[in-house]
Amino acid sequence: MTQFPETATAALAAAGGARVAWIRSRMALLAALREEFRRERPFAGRRIGVSLHIEPKTAVLLEVLAEGGAEIVGTGNHGSTQDDIVAFLRGQGIGVFGSRADTLDDHHANLARVLDARPDILLDNGADLAAGTVERGTAGAIIGGTEETTSGGDRLRGELMGKVPFPSIVINDSPLKAIGENKHAVGQSVVESFMRITNLMVPGRRFCVVGYGWCGRGIAQYLRALGGRVAIVEVDEIKALEAALDGYRVAPLADLAPWAEVFITATGRPGVLPAEAIGAMADGAVLANSGHFSWEIDVDGLRSMTRAETDLDGTLRRFDLANGRHVVLVADGRMFNLAGVAPKGNSIESMDIGFMLQALSLQRVALSAAGLAPGAQPVPDDINRRIARAMLAAMGAAR
Amino acid sequence: MTQFPETATAALAAAGGARVAWIRSRMALLAALREEFRRERPFAGRRIGVSLHIEPKTAVLLEVLAEGGAEIVGTGNHGSTQDDIVAFLRGQGIGVFGSRADTLDDHHANLARVLDARPDILLDNGADLAAGTVERGTAGAIIGGTEETTSGGDRLRGELMGKVPFPSIVINDSPLKAIGENKHAVGQSVVESFMRITNLMVPGRRFCVVGYGWCGRGIAQYLRALGGRVAIVEVDEIKALEAALDGYRVAPLADLAPWAEVFITATGRPGVLPAEAIGAMADGAVLANSGHFSWEIDVDGLRSMTRAETDLDGTLRRFDLANGRHVVLVADGRMFNLAGVAPKGNSIESMDIGFMLQALSLQRVALSAAGLAPGAQPVPDDINRRIARAMLAAMGAAR
Amino acid sequence: MTQFPETATAALAAAGGARVAWIRSRMALLAALREEFRRERPFAGRRIGVSLHIEPKTAVLLEVLAEGGAEIVGTGNHGSTQDDIVAFLRGQGIGVFGSRADTLDDHHANLARVLDARPDILLDNGADLAAGTVERGTAGAIIGGTEETTSGGDRLRGELMGKVPFPSIVINDSPLKAIGENKHAVGQSVVESFMRITNLMVPGRRFCVVGYGWCGRGIAQYLRALGGRVAIVEVDEIKALEAALDGYRVAPLADLAPWAEVFITATGRPGVLPAEAIGAMADGAVLANSGHFSWEIDVDGLRSMTRAETDLDGTLRRFDLANGRHVVLVADGRMFNLAGVAPKGNSIESMDIGFMLQALSLQRVALSAAGLAPGAQPVPDDINRRIARAMLAAMGAAR
Amino acid sequence: MTQFPETATAALAAAGGARVAWIRSRMALLAALREEFRRERPFAGRRIGVSLHIEPKTAVLLEVLAEGGAEIVGTGNHGSTQDDIVAFLRGQGIGVFGSRADTLDDHHANLARVLDARPDILLDNGADLAAGTVERGTAGAIIGGTEETTSGGDRLRGELMGKVPFPSIVINDSPLKAIGENKHAVGQSVVESFMRITNLMVPGRRFCVVGYGWCGRGIAQYLRALGGRVAIVEVDEIKALEAALDGYRVAPLADLAPWAEVFITATGRPGVLPAEAIGAMADGAVLANSGHFSWEIDVDGLRSMTRAETDLDGTLRRFDLANGRHVVLVADGRMFNLAGVAPKGNSIESMDIGFMLQALSLQRVALSAAGLAPGAQPVPDDINRRIARAMLAAMGAAR
Repeated sequence: MTQFPETATAALAAAGGARVAWIRSRMALLAALREEFRRERPFAGRRIGVSLHIEPKTAVLLEVLAEGGAEIVGTGNHGSTQDDIVAFLRGQGIGVFGSRADTLDDHHANLARVLDARPDILLDNGADLAAGTVERGTAGAIIGGTEETTSGGDRLRGELMGKVPFPSIVINDSPLKAIGENKHAVGQSVVESFMRITNLMVPGRRFCVVGYGWCGRGIAQYLRALGGRVAIVEVDEIKALEAALDGYRVAPLADLAPWAEVFITATGRPGVLPAEAIGAMADGAVLANSGHFSWEIDVDGLRSMTRAETDLDGTLRRFDLANGRHVVLVADGRMFNLAGVAPKGNSIESMDIGFMLQALSLQRVALSAAGLAPGAQPVPDDINRRIARAMLAAMGAAR
Repeated sequence: MTQFPETATAALAAAGGARVAWIRSRMALLAALREEFRRERPFAGRRIGVSLHIEPKTAVLLEVLAEGGAEIVGTGNHGSTQDDIVAFLRGQGIGVFGSRADTLDDHHANLARVLDARPDILLDNGADLAAGTVERGTAGAIIGGTEETTSGGDRLRGELMGKVPFPSIVINDSPLKAIGENKHAVGQSVVESFMRITNLMVPGRRFCVVGYGWCGRGIAQYLRALGGRVAIVEVDEIKALEAALDGYRVAPLADLAPWAEVFITATGRPGVLPAEAIGAMADGAVLANSGHFSWEIDVDGLRSMTRAETDLDGTLRRFDLANGRHVVLVADGRMFNLAGVAPKGNSIESMDIGFMLQALSLQRVALSAAGLAPGAQPVPDDINRRIARAMLAAMGAAR
Repeated sequence: MTQFPETATAALAAAGGARVAWIRSRMALLAALREEFRRERPFAGRRIGVSLHIEPKTAVLLEVLAEGGAEIVGTGNHGSTQDDIVAFLRGQGIGVFGSRADTLDDHHANLARVLDARPDILLDNGADLAAGTVERGTAGAIIGGTEETTSGGDRLRGELMGKVPFPSIVINDSPLKAIGENKHAVGQSVVESFMRITNLMVPGRRFCVVGYGWCGRGIAQYLRALGGRVAIVEVDEIKALEAALDGYRVAPLADLAPWAEVFITATGRPGVLPAEAIGAMADGAVLANSGHFSWEIDVDGLRSMTRAETDLDGTLRRFDLANGRHVVLVADGRMFNLAGVAPKGNSIESMDIGFMLQALSLQRVALSAAGLAPGAQPVPDDINRRIARAMLAAMGAAR
Repeated sequence: MTQFPETATAALAAAGGARVAWIRSRMALLAALREEFRRERPFAGRRIGVSLHIEPKTAVLLEVLAEGGAEIVGTGNHGSTQDDIVAFLRGQGIGVFGSRADTLDDHHANLARVLDARPDILLDNGADLAAGTVERGTAGAIIGGTEETTSGGDRLRGELMGKVPFPSIVINDSPLKAIGENKHAVGQSVVESFMRITNLMVPGRRFCVVGYGWCGRGIAQYLRALGGRVAIVEVDEIKALEAALDGYRVAPLADLAPWAEVFITATGRPGVLPAEAIGAMADGAVLANSGHFSWEIDVDGLRSMTRAETDLDGTLRRFDLANGRHVVLVADGRMFNLAGVAPKGNSIESMDIGFMLQALSLQRVALSAAGLAPGAQPVPDDINRRIARAMLAAMGAAR
């Protein structure tokens, strides 16, 4: 790894290591797999190119892959890389680089360096690495890989269709992600973040959840379970009927804008909370987005209606509107379950499931790539079932 | 309709009519469709052959089809036909026949008479009429139809594949059935029936629900919501993990047999409550089946372990086992949400949805059969969406 | 018992006995007490005068008291006596009389005959027997007794204050009644009765529960748990705030009248659903009362606004109003959880708790009347605790 | 206020002010009262001696009292005073002093200085100020006051009985505290803190809640609502039966020790999680206390069984036991809903209710002390009802 600039100090690495320790001790599935990989070394002689958010939970995944014999060459997402974790991983001989302060150019350079290292397996995110190999004409040297996101899967099935000669297993399409992460873990982290950031009472409060997909229904269920009064906006009639039969008020945003006190978006689509609706809200409405992209709340539109803007505490921002009322925006419209002081993100166990999908899919690629069709494909059913069984056992569900 | 023996008395018809009135007044979707059909007469000149459970709710569907111009020629399922409803419908000029006392031979004769009437559209159940036309070589005269059940759909895609030249829309495969009926309505009717038949307390009681499909999860959710302590048996690992993350104990039946006080099966599969498990149950365990078929509880096996059998009230039956304990079987292992005194079955509104699927699918067949592929097929998406929108409006979900 | 006319036939007694058998087999607390009473005979030589609703569950209580050595002389409430149970009890040598067809004069004569028999302990209801002894000047011959109702307790502390020289333990004031019966059992029986009688869907339906006392909150909790959208009317500000923090919409009846689809009263007070509110309801609103008295819904006022009245099925009655809309009244405004075909009333186990309070309080009177103060008093704390422990054990709460 | 050392810097005051701003903007009840007090000046000419936790929420209360004309002379609890809030308040001319670094001697000196200032009304905590006036013989100069805690109330009714000649209204005994704070707000902050501190999954996790009082039932309800599997330990039989009927497993700690994964104490009593139970727990059990006192978990006993102790992150501490298993203790057994990074404590609105009780009770004392009996007494009923009405309106419960 000497080709990378050595910037991590021992102190930073120690701090990162301390943060990883608690998480590692609670990832029961990866802990068992670590032992198996140590014995069986499925990645011996393999170099895995990684593009993945670098934080304490991913660190445990990378450790386990390394334990399985992989040489890791990786980088994070732009702007979210945690320097202490980079330092910690490098101290373990795991080749990640990049830092939170990187410019976009730096980030692209980092991706290029991953490809320069000539990986033969990819752990990809948004199909960035896959596209890079196509561009360089080196895709043929890749035996296969995984793709973390649905949007990366769409890219593989879209613009990259026919150009990627290797199998790419799309992790986010696994039913275990919908069950374990999108519904329960996102629901949990959203309600935790709402309470942690705002300190507002949930019981009796009127919430409008925009979107009744897997994430939206987890959020709605948990808010209601804590005593919140929850209404749903959903454009798909079938999902809207599900919400109504689940006991929610289901109404157009125009009806709910003056009614709700808190609006949480969870659609993945742009502009679902437009300026017009914000203008109709009651004084003091709180707006938060739980979706991956920052586009669900029309912040520009909001700003255009605003007389004065006040930062309340770095995470909450008050907008005094020209109409004489004010609204409070959480985390500038970014995914607020990772915002504020001391955010924890999705629960450790939900990420244990998600990273087991990664680790076992990469193992399948390493050992049986020839048996897999080229291109984007779902996680093999036997892997889903093995993880479900392991999780049930780890949870002690039968007790 | 004079070819049918006239057995219905005016009194019987009046009794049936009274039972239909309340239901008709609460089927808002069919009520609106009735007006539309009256104006547009989509079935004018059509004869619809019907094989469907004959009870007050189906009566409303048949009325609406008749209002749309259809001539109805139909019969019920064996053993469940309600004579007052037959009398009532015949009094309205709707041609149904058969009676509860019919033998199996009578039932087959009734089905034959439906086909003898040369219908051009079928409202089928278990593909009995479709198979009959194939056997008679008259399938070519049918322009299309609907099939109520998934098992009928399987039959069309199995033994009848390629032999049925007309389109058959399989109602039970619509997402609205899973949402509106299998989860919510079955869940509601099962908890209502448990309370009505046994008069036992739900709060704090230990239930074992066998099966975590749509029906099982509705049952589990409602029992828990009423204060029951619910554990799940589920052989599919993915569904089992869902159950565990939904907060249920999930364990093998062998673990739960001595723990639970009430066992409810909802799998659709035979023998899921075998004699061996029954022998391990605690004294006084209550056994009930909510699935369509009577085979989920091994009643023969239970009987073979029994020293003495006592009828408690016609619906509850006590079995004193050779092991010194006793169990109580509900409704002889038949679908118990239609058992006991004064059963009501699924809620009126859930059947309003189900019969809207029938009525609009039959309309599609009547008006656009040529645009449909032959064989079993799902309900057209636009019909699902139209009904979802209508139901949201009828529920006043936005209020 | 030969002084009573012998009207019960063997067939009637057998029918009553069959109805009692299932209930007796599920009253675990009374079953254990029966064994204890058989050994210890706490009532040996005592005659207990009884005024209590006569139905299958009370039969088990009376059997247990008889097993404890008591001679029973009793009668039921006016209009609710179940003749088969009278016949069954008399066949067991338990002296109850009266019949459902009794006139009010007959009922008063029955009460007189109970007092004529010179009981020395009273199991009273509404303080009718206690008042009778005061009137006759025979109260001095009573060593003590129990009073089932709070209103009877109020009477003892009001008009009868100082005139009743014996201790009377008021059963309904026990915390176990609020917990076991008023909240959970009434809640369960109300939702069961709503579904059984109306066959309407609960999920997504808009309910207005009038009253947030113990009964109202049980009803609200269970309806919401089944997917209902529930709003509360409550005049007491503190309880109203509890309801709001429990996540309910809490509003004046005037606001909710046009919103809700179903109105359920649970206040114990007259006229809480007045004609004015009924006139503001949406077409098709359903009105039901769960309180003990029939006065909560202003049926006379409703009638005065009505153009036409139609009996739908003996339990549901349609009122077409002068304003062009209609409402549906359940059970003529009487307590509807005991109405309709095949009502079961409160769960067996909840009555097991209630009758244990009776049996142990009567035992206390029989064995230690001298240690009790005269007049109305609560159930001794040790009796409440003994029953709570026994119920926890019977439920297997620790499993 | 010049008699106090001026230590607060402007920067500190500004930081404190920023933290107060968001909270002030969300305390709707105090905001309205502030306007009323500004007009009516109920405390004009009065000096209020204050002993109360000094943090952002109390700052809003003190501002409102000052707005009502009061001169404030106060100090905080030992060890919890927030220096930026002291600085902020002093900058507003509100006389509070003390700092987080104070020794116990410093704290006592601070209390003495409050009394030296000769207040005529007390806002007391644990009856510390009341006891001080008795000791000094200056109690006669106090016209009345409030006492925040139940334990202070007990002290007034115990050792100080007959010695305190002025009325003291005990805030914590108000039903609004049980409803608004102990159940809902503590429940909310406990689940938020558990998720924030541990990042563990709640769905499917096995929790043991020790204590089923107001706090315990809020905690249990919310954990279960989020998908947790919750069991209860409760020594009082009546509360235990309530828990069982609410659908929880209720068992002795000895049964639950090896079953649960997380133990949360909420009893107010010492040693409810003794070393013996900890020794029986499964590997990795997490222990947390939500009660006010740090004595519920036997930390000394735990330590005596421990081979090695590791600080994980300042809030979580791992104890490797001599038996080969380990447990994780949260916040050293102190009230963990105020522990960890960025704790927020009870919701803003719940404290708005609590401080309205303070402000209106102090107003009653200021204006009508002569109408109040001396000694400890409950919040006047009209004050409770006024606040309940105001809160319902502020919540928009009717919408």
